Amino acid sequence: MILSKYIPSIEWLKNYNKADLKGDLSAGLTVGVMLIPQGMAYAMIAGLPPIFGLYASTIPLIIYALFGTSRQLAVGPVAMVSLLTAAGVGVLAEGGTAEYITLAIALALMVGVIQFALGVFRLGFLVNFLSHPVISGFTSAAALIIGLSQLKHLMGVDLDRSSYVHEILLQAVEHVSATHLPTLMVGLGGIAVILLLKRFVKAIPGQLVAVLLGIIVVWGLGLADSGVKIVGDIPQGLPSITAPNLDLSVWQKLMPTALAISIVSFMESIAVAKAIQSKHRNYKVVPNQELISLGLANIFGSIFQSYPTTGGFSRTAVNDQAGAKTGLASIISAGLIVLTLLFLTPLFYYLPKAILASVIMVAVFGLIDLKEPKHLWRSNKTDFVMLVVTFFATLALGIEEGIATGVILSLIMVIYRTTKPHMAVLGKVPGTRVFRNIERFEDLETRDDVLIIRFDADLYFANINYFTEQIEEMIEEHGTESLRVVVIDAESINHIDSSGVHALEQLITDLKERDIYLYLAAVKGPVRDSLHMGHLIEKIGEHRFFLTKQGALDHIDRVLRGEDSSPRFSEYTLQTNLHD
Amino acid sequence: MILSKYIPSIEWLKNYNKADLKGDLSAGLTVGVMLIPQGMAYAMIAGLPPIFGLYASTIPLIIYALFGTSRQLAVGPVAMVSLLTAAGVGVLAEGGTAEYITLAIALALMVGVIQFALGVFRLGFLVNFLSHPVISGFTSAAALIIGLSQLKHLMGVDLDRSSYVHEILLQAVEHVSATHLPTLMVGLGGIAVILLLKRFVKAIPGQLVAVLLGIIVVWGLGLADSGVKIVGDIPQGLPSITAPNLDLSVWQKLMPTALAISIVSFMESIAVAKAIQSKHRNYKVVPNQELISLGLANIFGSIFQSYPTTGGFSRTAVNDQAGAKTGLASIISAGLIVLTLLFLTPLFYYLPKAILASVIMVAVFGLIDLKEPKHLWRSNKTDFVMLVVTFFATLALGIEEGIATGVILSLIMVIYRTTKPHMAVLGKVPGTRVFRNIERFEDLETRDDVLIIRFDADLYFANINYFTEQIEEMIEEHGTESLRVVVIDAESINHIDSSGVHALEQLITDLKERDIYLYLAAVKGPVRDSLHMGHLIEKIGEHRFFLTKQGALDHIDRVLRGEDSSPRFSEYTLQTNLHD
Repeated sequence: MILSKYIPSIEWLKNYNKADLKGDLSAGLTVGVMLIPQGMAYAMIAGLPPIFGLYASTIPLIIYALFGTSRQLAVGPVAMVSLLTAAGVGVLAEGGTAEYITLAIALALMVGVIQFALGVFRLGFLVNFLSHPVISGFTSAAALIIGLSQLKHLMGVDLDRSSYVHEILLQAVEHVSATHLPTLMVGLGGIAVILLLKRFVKAIPGQLVAVLLGIIVVWGLGLADSGVKIVGDIPQGLPSITAPNLDLSVWQKLMPTALAISIVSFMESIAVAKAIQSKHRNYKVVPNQELISLGLANIFGSIFQSYPTTGGFSRTAVNDQAGAKTGLASIISAGLIVLTLLFLTPLFYYLPKAILASVIMVAVFGLIDLKEPKHLWRSNKTDFVMLVVTFFATLALGIEEGIATGVILSLIMVIYRTTKPHMAVLGKVPGTRVFRNIERFEDLETRDDVLIIRFDADLYFANINYFTEQIEEMIEEHGTESLRVVVIDAESINHIDSSGVHALEQLITDLKERDIYLYLAAVKGPVRDSLHMGHLIEKIGEHRFFLTKQGALDHIDRVLRGEDSSPRFSEYTLQTNLHD
Repeated sequence: MILSKYIPSIEWLKNYNKADLKGDLSAGLTVGVMLIPQGMAYAMIAGLPPIFGLYASTIPLIIYALFGTSRQLAVGPVAMVSLLTAAGVGVLAEGGTAEYITLAIALALMVGVIQFALGVFRLGFLVNFLSHPVISGFTSAAALIIGLSQLKHLMGVDLDRSSYVHEILLQAVEHVSATHLPTLMVGLGGIAVILLLKRFVKAIPGQLVAVLLGIIVVWGLGLADSGVKIVGDIPQGLPSITAPNLDLSVWQKLMPTALAISIVSFMESIAVAKAIQSKHRNYKVVPNQELISLGLANIFGSIFQSYPTTGGFSRTAVNDQAGAKTGLASIISAGLIVLTLLFLTPLFYYLPKAILASVIMVAVFGLIDLKEPKHLWRSNKTDFVMLVVTFFATLALGIEEGIATGVILSLIMVIYRTTKPHMAVLGKVPGTRVFRNIERFEDLETRDDVLIIRFDADLYFANINYFTEQIEEMIEEHGTESLRVVVIDAESINHIDSSGVHALEQLITDLKERDIYLYLAAVKGPVRDSLHMGHLIEKIGEHRFFLTKQGALDHIDRVLRGEDSSPRFSEYTLQTNLHD
């Protein structure tokens, strides 16, 4: 039992159902075939030779299949993490050099260790701080950057590496006359093939067809000699074992990138894993175990020359649709890549880089999300602004800075919102015991001697001044002549801190000086506890707590009619006034 | 009317009541007498010659009296701001030099401009982010640092300036054998005089008596010749007009200190102003106008050689007790200081610095707050931790870093608390329409076909995962066999963001697959708006919103009895089901 908590694959391994084999085999092969062009293309985004995309498609898949909690998640190289790798390693070394490769592999090790540690210390909840609008804005901007970063391969010109959209576009415009036409034709042809097959013949994997057609065309027409850039020699054989030997200062420089990749890749992975799991229900995705398994996949991957990997959107969807039932599918995919590495790499000698660029562009431009901003524009302006700010911050400040801006901004908004919360004066719905905001509902009953106020937030240090000032204002508006009781409807107060207790105490004292009594209605358990602990309940012994607002009103009436012997409302009973 | 909003003194100037004059005169003279030793002592904390404490006790008092909204607040040099000045200017120049003095005066100008701008842009609410425990922990630590910083004057030895308690104590122990006994005797004598008069003869101002006795003893016994350090020559006459002429880089270096002083001094001032105002009620303290008036006091003060000032605790309390009714009291205090500057400075030639140290030590050690941590330890462990962390952070990291740590930590706690909010399964109090947490109240009625769940927080991006997971768990615990309806009691949900709307949508879909219907009860106006805008209400047309939980239950019963023709609960009415 405990073992299968840490190695979830035991569950499906020990009772493997032969009926699942067909689906696993078909899904495994389909994803494997997708992985060949995607792996090479994503390695190119990361600034690595294409072969490293294939290396990253072996060990990590197998490790995740054993330790992961999702049975359909397809782990491997993905576009976003590849771009983050390029952005982080690109400032430390020249793309494609031995040093660059060493750094990218070291980065996988760091990401793995960070994710593993986050999982062990159960910090998976941190991912909760990424809101949907922030993710959407960030993804669209990153997709734009990734897509445009491939312009140089599509146009067949040399452009400086940049992750700023305006710089890329400016350079592209400057070099537009140098465009290598045969390269452009091949690239556009690739895009056309992928889009057409995607639209009309879904069963055929467009990316693979584009790759094969590209190889045949370039080889057949001898386009490599006329300047179409090709992948060239790919070393045959499996990845070898490496241990990065770097200065401490280099590790330190990689740290911000490693942190960003750890969080972003976990986020992408857990989102897709949960979406797929909700369709299956025969297993449960456990966030912290996901961190541990992705961490192990990256650690062992890096030992075998893999750069950072994670669970990706597109291949996971294909894996599921093709019938994957267990992690065996991923192991089969990895097996196909191993066979490719052993025997098929010479096939890709003539693969034009423009085709890989077309694979990337189609994939990532599909990630640009226009629906969400449109939807938010109509439904939630604050979240719309959050999305747009994150989008432009990512474009203008950079990948990691963009996501950090989004997260910090959304947390500030959370705080800000609670500093000036919604407050309402309540009236009674005639003939019921229900109370509603007098500004939202018509014909509510109110009375001159009682003012009922609802405070719609936790009462804590950042809003106690607002709380006091607003109540003061509401009392003034109501008029103090015949006012005898203010009832605070505390049903929305989920928490009160020591500053809140102080403020309430002060309010009671201030009101008492004007011969107005404070009642509290519908105080929740945790708040009641805090009031008890703060000795507020004893201090204000002559005030009462009521389960409901109606209970408070009934009590006031009894006192006014002289039926209640406590003119000072002096009896405090918490448990016993249940029936008020 | 508008004029008296910006110059509140017009209110009391134009109808000055002669009956108030007695109180104003008595209070003004008392505070003025206090200001002479305090001003000189606090200037010493700030690392300035004593005369600058008197300069800071003239113009700022008059400006505040004209523009401030409090009628009792006593503005001038205070211990905390003096310490912050020393900490900030001390790293840029040698204490007591002409450069140091220029920087301290420039700092007052910056503080003034910042406070004025904060007030004009109505950013006074920022002070709300300082919680009571953070203020208490910070004040105690700062008092400890200030008090110990005077050890060198009390012992009569040279110690390096430091704002780290352990460094000060270490140095003091190292130099204990060098203690100058006559100096120590004078200092301890001063402390004894102040404490004894404070305890037994409250009417006599102990600080002034200590100062006079100190001067007489040192002069009479010729102690200055035997090494007791004295204040010495104090230039006679009023402060002259200055304009600081500094490099841009120096202004930049002063900026963090200026920001910290602006916030901390406003906080101290507004806290005491509000406390005093609550006793009077014939005027109102307006935070943004307070920022403007304190800002003007610092700006005009700096023109007349004043270092940063603010409204202080102790003198304000004395001012009020001595009968101050209007700002005239402060103008009288300033007048007394002006007379002192013109005629009395030679008197202070023999004033021993040890006496000023004793004035400071008695004042600040009284600020060390042991009651609040004791109270919080019993009543609120989280706030207790916040206080203790701020206290030690201030001691270990420094004054500004300490308060920043406290603020950031308390904001993180606010966020963290809402990520795993309180949730409760509700049962009905028998014979009522009231529902309570089944874990807190006994004998509540529950039913197999309905599960009522209350979520005690805003539903937003950082807690949607927790929300979904907990509901899943509660459903599992309840058992799904006969469960037909889950009622979410939304009375505590004050806000829902777009991520929350998505999560609710997903939950409805998930439940529907298991033939469970979701009802929402007591949804608040702002949340209803968000659901409307997110098109959730249309999408889940077959579910219903109810004003109360009882309304939802009644509806379920009608459907079960076949009385309601909508087996799919398909009718949605927002305004018309008021009577449900």
